[in-house]
Amino acid sequence: MPDRFAGRRVLITGGLGFLGSRLAARLATCGAVLTLVDLPTALTDDDRRRLGPAANASAYHACDVRDLEQLSLRLAGQEIVFWLAAHGGHLASMQAPLLDLDVNYRSLVAAADHCRRHHPRLRFVFTSTRQVYGRPETLPVSESHRTRPPDANGVHKLAAEHFLRICSEVYGLPTVSLRLTNVYGPGMTLDDPEQGVAGVLLGQALRGEPLTLFGGDQVREFVYIDDVVDALLRAGLVDEPRGEAFNIGARRPHSLREFATAIASILPVDVRIVPFPAERRAIDVGDVVCDSSRFQQATGWQPETSLESGLRLTIESLQLTL
Amino acid sequence: MPDRFAGRRVLITGGLGFLGSRLAARLATCGAVLTLVDLPTALTDDDRRRLGPAANASAYHACDVRDLEQLSLRLAGQEIVFWLAAHGGHLASMQAPLLDLDVNYRSLVAAADHCRRHHPRLRFVFTSTRQVYGRPETLPVSESHRTRPPDANGVHKLAAEHFLRICSEVYGLPTVSLRLTNVYGPGMTLDDPEQGVAGVLLGQALRGEPLTLFGGDQVREFVYIDDVVDALLRAGLVDEPRGEAFNIGARRPHSLREFATAIASILPVDVRIVPFPAERRAIDVGDVVCDSSRFQQATGWQPETSLESGLRLTIESLQLTL
Repeated sequence: MPDRFAGRRVLITGGLGFLGSRLAARLATCGAVLTLVDLPTALTDDDRRRLGPAANASAYHACDVRDLEQLSLRLAGQEIVFWLAAHGGHLASMQAPLLDLDVNYRSLVAAADHCRRHHPRLRFVFTSTRQVYGRPETLPVSESHRTRPPDANGVHKLAAEHFLRICSEVYGLPTVSLRLTNVYGPGMTLDDPEQGVAGVLLGQALRGEPLTLFGGDQVREFVYIDDVVDALLRAGLVDEPRGEAFNIGARRPHSLREFATAIASILPVDVRIVPFPAERRAIDVGDVVCDSSRFQQATGWQPETSLESGLRLTIESLQLTL
Repeated sequence: MPDRFAGRRVLITGGLGFLGSRLAARLATCGAVLTLVDLPTALTDDDRRRLGPAANASAYHACDVRDLEQLSLRLAGQEIVFWLAAHGGHLASMQAPLLDLDVNYRSLVAAADHCRRHHPRLRFVFTSTRQVYGRPETLPVSESHRTRPPDANGVHKLAAEHFLRICSEVYGLPTVSLRLTNVYGPGMTLDDPEQGVAGVLLGQALRGEPLTLFGGDQVREFVYIDDVVDALLRAGLVDEPRGEAFNIGARRPHSLREFATAIASILPVDVRIVPFPAERRAIDVGDVVCDSSRFQQATGWQPETSLESGLRLTIESLQLTL
């Protein structure tokens, strides 16, 4: 599969982010002709380290995706765009819904509308989120589960999926969306609850603090970043995409207690279970178990990394950069 | 019920439109303290005729809903806002998706976010569309039918519903959305396919042209405007709205042939059935049958107007203004 990217012209928006930089490194190894856009005006040493082989093998342009005039210069001539540019999470999107709208949806509408007119064969691979489902009604959650996002961010990710699907149905623009779950791995953001529980627990563990869990029975899909990169590559190659949205889950779901215990088998920290406060339980999304079989059947993708080895790779990498 | 609006401070966005002006006339009769906003800088004679008792009993302000600074002056002090401001339909939204986005969704996000901060008891009644469902999978379509809008307009109406629901769930802002079907009645736009088949057929009939139907078996929900106005009033009074979206359908569905035949029983025109061209059938949305029982149970609403009497009232009114 990697050979199929050799010489392909690929654009990544959000190319310096956690997922974007890892994807860039992989695509550079595959021999793709890479263009990255993101907000900073120049690459830092930290960016270069995360980009690895892509640091020198790709063209980087500072560009706000909300600026179609600038972005259109980068879209011209591409074969695939991985649209990973994104802003904020649950709380940020509720505090500043217009900013979330403009970055996460309006920019994509402008770009997709531009491309269906000027570059109708340019493929869009878009990273969405399992948050489009909201609190699951039935488990596991398949793609036909009803969509009821719990926050502005989820509304805008869902709207983006719909718009890309419509561009595919009406104009034949090849588009595909991946609904990601809890992605973890080297380069991830630590200690920001907005970025998910995995980074919070790993941040605590790396400081030697005990891992404190409410109850700990809540189930999540923790996916190692390289498995997500693999899913993105396969989405970039899938035959005749028609705007479908696919779940990207883990090999199997794990409870928070299992996740914390796996960390504690690598780092010398305690896991402390405390009762779930009633007011927190009320706003908890409940268990998350995703059915990824549609994407597996469509592409042959399988998440390869066990939780234990994924966590070991993550912790080793994070320790090097502390 | 009308008495319950006496003295209430009510804002209507899109207050000069087909539905907005009819709602304004009714609310003026009920003794509401009315403010209307819409785009024109001044009322025309035609506006005044459609507004009826609201022409003198309401304050009118030219205001683009995309301009929150101006709109916020009109939101202050209101108890209910009927958000009827809208732009375009299927084709217009695909030709200019950013315009559709800004008018039909972004403006509402700005206003609802402003109100949840500054006017958290202000009630929003929003007019959505059955287009949020796309092509029905099962009939009749209830509110739990999956949402899969077929165009940018539907995406933005659906996003608006979600955002209002979330504002209700998270902040307690009282919001309710009505998913309208094929509304017809005095003041409707004729001859614009974007505004629906009812206005196209009525335009032909008023010119004495034959009514030409492809097949004619397609089923729609034709709702007389005063029944929709009644639904809006009831939505404005429903207890403790929590962001629900309700279907607003007809007394019963009618085929296009039945609709055309009912016109031909009032006006001396022929109904011509021609074969359904294959390329048109491919993009037809299929039959539309909505289940409105949830709204009926929640509010006691019933569509009162038969197709025959609704068409008679519509044609009499349209003939006066030709």
